[in-house]
Amino acid sequence: MKLYDVTQAPNPRRVRMFAAEKGIDLECVQVDMAKGEHKTPEFLQKNPSGKIPVLELDDGTCIGESVAICRYLEAIQPEPNLFGEAPVELAQVEMVHRQIELELFSQVGTSWVNGPVVGKLFAGRIEQIPAAKDKSDKLTHAFYERLNRQLAEAPYIAGDRFTIVDITTLIIVDFATAMVGLKPAEELENLWRWHALVSARPSASA
Amino acid sequence: MKLYDVTQAPNPRRVRMFAAEKGIDLECVQVDMAKGEHKTPEFLQKNPSGKIPVLELDDGTCIGESVAICRYLEAIQPEPNLFGEAPVELAQVEMVHRQIELELFSQVGTSWVNGPVVGKLFAGRIEQIPAAKDKSDKLTHAFYERLNRQLAEAPYIAGDRFTIVDITTLIIVDFATAMVGLKPAEELENLWRWHALVSARPSASA
Repeated sequence: MKLYDVTQAPNPRRVRMFAAEKGIDLECVQVDMAKGEHKTPEFLQKNPSGKIPVLELDDGTCIGESVAICRYLEAIQPEPNLFGEAPVELAQVEMVHRQIELELFSQVGTSWVNGPVVGKLFAGRIEQIPAAKDKSDKLTHAFYERLNRQLAEAPYIAGDRFTIVDITTLIIVDFATAMVGLKPAEELENLWRWHALVSARPSASA
Repeated sequence: MKLYDVTQAPNPRRVRMFAAEKGIDLECVQVDMAKGEHKTPEFLQKNPSGKIPVLELDDGTCIGESVAICRYLEAIQPEPNLFGEAPVELAQVEMVHRQIELELFSQVGTSWVNGPVVGKLFAGRIEQIPAAKDKSDKLTHAFYERLNRQLAEAPYIAGDRFTIVDITTLIIVDFATAMVGLKPAEELENLWRWHALVSARPSASA
């Protein structure tokens, strides 16, 4: 299995970390987004959305979307379980995962797309909306506070055990901190305790 | 099982349609969002995100997020399968579902939040960004065109059979058309053929 990858980007890191937790080796192929390699006709055949990562199976089947790739890996290698097992747990992991993606990741993404790094990289080629960045910056910090409150009640984001939700949240927080200027405030102690706990896993450096 | 519901909203409709496909009866309890019933302390206990729908199980456990509710229903009632079965199909359904949600639903949502209906309903209580609406209007129509091209190759959004992706796409297109002024162009014939096919299912009026 071959993973079309961008080392610095959050979504490919999610897949690499998930695969490492499963003990699955992936052959990583770097895609140079600055050169537009993800928008060539050949690449759009693999993923019409023109996004990284893509997992290419040995028979040539391509799977885009990092969470879809993770579900594939969970299906072929069920242990350790990372999406939930019994119906209620499975639903709760999905619920919290979606809250994180819809209420945190989407805001960080809006701040990123409308922020200075992207503005410089794609100068003149994209439309940026500063008011959208300001609003998303505020919503991101508000969500960090909510997470900090939730993490006073449980060690992991979706409850008592490590799941894909911790992987997703780690890759978002690290990306927001390093690339978007959205580091969580120092006083959010529960959030930082969780961050240290999850960052200490060997998979975090995959 | 009790579903906290808003008849006109897209996400509760997704759950009602999914449950109807499974032959599962849900007791629907209407929540009056105009009166702020989804933001009361009692409701926030059920769902800290303050969103509809929420499924309340007989033991009081609450599941928010429409897709998490659908996954619960799929787990307790596996037939007919709507999320995919073998690993590759399961991943492909998830991939296409996420493309629809991230590239279509999120744009329709941005146009809705920054559009005239919401502006009137929440006058003075929310910040609207007209440039964000304009950008999302354009991206929505561009995605409709992509869907139309994909539907030249397969009868359903995720391929040869009906899945949750068709439910999600139907509730988005109908909401975009009725409430957001984003009706797909008449000439998108494959899209409209698919729309007629899926709208004819008894579950579409659930």
